[in-house]
Amino acid sequence: MDKIKIGLFGFGKTGRIVAQEIMQDKRVDFAWVVRRSKSSNHKYASRLLGYEHDATPIFSADRTGEDFFKSHPVDIIIDFSGPLGYKSYEGAPRLGIKIISAISKLEQPAIDVLKSYSEHSAVLYSPNITLGVNFLLVASQVLQSIAPKADIEIIEEHFRDKRGVSGTALKIANILGLENTRHVNSVRVGGIVGRHEVIFGLPNQTIRLVHESISRGAFGQGALFAAKWLYDKPPGFYSMEGIISDMFKQNIPVY
Amino acid sequence: MDKIKIGLFGFGKTGRIVAQEIMQDKRVDFAWVVRRSKSSNHKYASRLLGYEHDATPIFSADRTGEDFFKSHPVDIIIDFSGPLGYKSYEGAPRLGIKIISAISKLEQPAIDVLKSYSEHSAVLYSPNITLGVNFLLVASQVLQSIAPKADIEIIEEHFRDKRGVSGTALKIANILGLENTRHVNSVRVGGIVGRHEVIFGLPNQTIRLVHESISRGAFGQGALFAAKWLYDKPPGFYSMEGIISDMFKQNIPVY
Amino acid sequence: MDKIKIGLFGFGKTGRIVAQEIMQDKRVDFAWVVRRSKSSNHKYASRLLGYEHDATPIFSADRTGEDFFKSHPVDIIIDFSGPLGYKSYEGAPRLGIKIISAISKLEQPAIDVLKSYSEHSAVLYSPNITLGVNFLLVASQVLQSIAPKADIEIIEEHFRDKRGVSGTALKIANILGLENTRHVNSVRVGGIVGRHEVIFGLPNQTIRLVHESISRGAFGQGALFAAKWLYDKPPGFYSMEGIISDMFKQNIPVY
Amino acid sequence: MDKIKIGLFGFGKTGRIVAQEIMQDKRVDFAWVVRRSKSSNHKYASRLLGYEHDATPIFSADRTGEDFFKSHPVDIIIDFSGPLGYKSYEGAPRLGIKIISAISKLEQPAIDVLKSYSEHSAVLYSPNITLGVNFLLVASQVLQSIAPKADIEIIEEHFRDKRGVSGTALKIANILGLENTRHVNSVRVGGIVGRHEVIFGLPNQTIRLVHESISRGAFGQGALFAAKWLYDKPPGFYSMEGIISDMFKQNIPVY
Repeated sequence: MDKIKIGLFGFGKTGRIVAQEIMQDKRVDFAWVVRRSKSSNHKYASRLLGYEHDATPIFSADRTGEDFFKSHPVDIIIDFSGPLGYKSYEGAPRLGIKIISAISKLEQPAIDVLKSYSEHSAVLYSPNITLGVNFLLVASQVLQSIAPKADIEIIEEHFRDKRGVSGTALKIANILGLENTRHVNSVRVGGIVGRHEVIFGLPNQTIRLVHESISRGAFGQGALFAAKWLYDKPPGFYSMEGIISDMFKQNIPVY
Repeated sequence: MDKIKIGLFGFGKTGRIVAQEIMQDKRVDFAWVVRRSKSSNHKYASRLLGYEHDATPIFSADRTGEDFFKSHPVDIIIDFSGPLGYKSYEGAPRLGIKIISAISKLEQPAIDVLKSYSEHSAVLYSPNITLGVNFLLVASQVLQSIAPKADIEIIEEHFRDKRGVSGTALKIANILGLENTRHVNSVRVGGIVGRHEVIFGLPNQTIRLVHESISRGAFGQGALFAAKWLYDKPPGFYSMEGIISDMFKQNIPVY
Repeated sequence: MDKIKIGLFGFGKTGRIVAQEIMQDKRVDFAWVVRRSKSSNHKYASRLLGYEHDATPIFSADRTGEDFFKSHPVDIIIDFSGPLGYKSYEGAPRLGIKIISAISKLEQPAIDVLKSYSEHSAVLYSPNITLGVNFLLVASQVLQSIAPKADIEIIEEHFRDKRGVSGTALKIANILGLENTRHVNSVRVGGIVGRHEVIFGLPNQTIRLVHESISRGAFGQGALFAAKWLYDKPPGFYSMEGIISDMFKQNIPVY
Repeated sequence: MDKIKIGLFGFGKTGRIVAQEIMQDKRVDFAWVVRRSKSSNHKYASRLLGYEHDATPIFSADRTGEDFFKSHPVDIIIDFSGPLGYKSYEGAPRLGIKIISAISKLEQPAIDVLKSYSEHSAVLYSPNITLGVNFLLVASQVLQSIAPKADIEIIEEHFRDKRGVSGTALKIANILGLENTRHVNSVRVGGIVGRHEVIFGLPNQTIRLVHESISRGAFGQGALFAAKWLYDKPPGFYSMEGIISDMFKQNIPVY
């Protein structure tokens, strides 16, 4: 099987951890990283990630015109840069390069641009690209359909300084038709990385779906999972929830 | 919508609680109960369940020949009696009466007889008919398909005196291809009614699917759920897992 | 060791379950029950609890003048009756009979009367007399003292129809100096009997103290625990928290 | 209040994280680090921890004769080095320097040497110095004393590759008099940092004490907590469990 050639936009706090995950995946050829900062003395992502060899060159964002993607072709761009990063790879989809955007808070105009890209190539957008959270989203909806009378409550726990209600909890509440202010309980204590629990209460039994984050590496693994899925897909606009939903359908055991 | 006419076999510890659930369901006409014991002074299940009116007569198991089902027709028989109870309603399927057997430890010959019944009418057999446990079974399989590299462990907790490993935990382990002795952890303490937890561990995230039993009423609710589903089904052999699996397919949100 | 002779006030929903627990305790001689209702056909609590012999006569509340306690002496009265039940055993403390009141919502004037009783005999009052909740109360305070910088949140889960925030959760919040409205999270779903979780969050670790109720029998066991403790105590006003706190001191392992 | 002057032995994986914690504590003057490796180009721990100023010089272990502690006096040495590290600060206790050893698997002869140090100065030894685990240890013992009939089980969860049963779980089992092989359940999945749960089961209620590790920083915080406690103590041999047990006694609320 051919290796998937991947380029990464973004090399900040999350970007680096994602890069680490991409570098360790043997099914992937990690072609390059594009970052905003010009000041890096290092030319190779491998060095900045603690490896003792040169691999995966780093380029500055201001050098990525259309020619860049021709001279440095990849199968898929993974974007963990920022809300405006999508502008930097405007030329790529027309060359058949697929896009995975995992920017957490994208404005609607940016999403619309991504959708326009999807006329030329497969584009996946997911504000939370972890496998587990998307499983929670889909499984919760299925359980709600099966047990429509169940009472549902969400508990989300995060570190003390996290502001506002978790976007993931809001999304789960929204998709289940729950009123946020009444049914999402936010716990802010100490250093909890992230925990989401969806509780389904029936008169004689309780079902709990729980997702616990250990580290940001989950984003990298989610992106790689998405990349392998997206690899042979036709142009179109996809989401991680859609993939999981799709796999639900394919993998449901038949009796 | 027509009410579903139901007859119940079995009026022991679980049978009574199931009867209570059936009696409270407004979509159901609870026609009769058949119990083994002849010594009951009471003629109506309603009285034994604490109601102050006469409803749902009780018959003795030795009076249920083929004529019984002709003179006391129902849509569905729910069986919570015992391992040999299936013999008592041998004549029913040929009259088009559907069968739900929720006997927990049925031998293969008995299952084969149930299968022969299913040539004439819809027959559902499920050793654990609760909604939650079956959701756990199906959702666990789906998650395993999505995340095949996840490590999986099962923790089952029950009251101090419960002997042996929980049959439900063994079934989950078996269906996920886990070695029982290594991956099922049994906790026996105090009066815990029943708790099953399936833990999926990935390098950066953990997903937990948890089912907690509150009371045996869950069996009644599961049986009623199955009854409503089975009501308009053609002859065939069904299972609760199959229903849940089926509902997964129908209810998966499409994006 | 002599058996403790106990009389019970109250034979309602909780009272009966408490009576069941008292009847099963071999260190206890269960002398009588006093209930409000006069209409009982049965003269013995044993019969109403499903036993096939006569034991523990039932008396009507309007027949318990001072003479009653002289002619039917006990060591301890356990009160699960109601907010005005304390009036019925006004004469008992002067006879040296100890009192355990487990009424959940007692007004201050009633508490004051109980305190006046405690000049003559040992009186224990506890609105939640379960061992576990009181352990949670004391252990939470100790942990807060040890880790004063920990963020603390409380999650309480109960059945759908329970109104208002759990009194136990409010008490824990109050005793830890937490603002109720911000730090107590109430989950109301299905048929959860009762679950309290106190979460202590530190930057690098989280500690959770969890109490799960299985049945009301916990009240009976708490009352019996209190009775054995109170048996040889001098006149004074005691609480279940005080007992637990006391046992903490006596039982702390010395290194 | 005077700052506590601290020297650290050990600058490996855990040692560095501990150093980070010490450096951030405003009540502490972080005097120096001693590490085994001679090859460090950097002279200051601050630089290796990402700070942009010079603070806390690093010395090589082969340069720490008795003169070292005279010329570089501290109040307390914290040792996260290794099983033989205690030899390096042999001369310190006689100078009145207190010792905190947090080496996880110390042989008995080494512990005996630490005890001999404690004739001259306060010495604290704890193989798991986190606040939470020690709270679990002490609180579990107290609860067992209060509820001697409770069934107790331990569940410990760690990352996939952790070998053997967790030492902490074994210690809890041992101290509670539980047979390891039957009552400690080990779950090994994915990347769980560390989770210990002690379950107390009574017939009508369940109590769970849970400790979840988020990062190794908990060791640093435990060591600093111990340092502040040890600061004004006379010569003697102490343990973290002993401190927590002591604080239990002092902080138990009196009613």
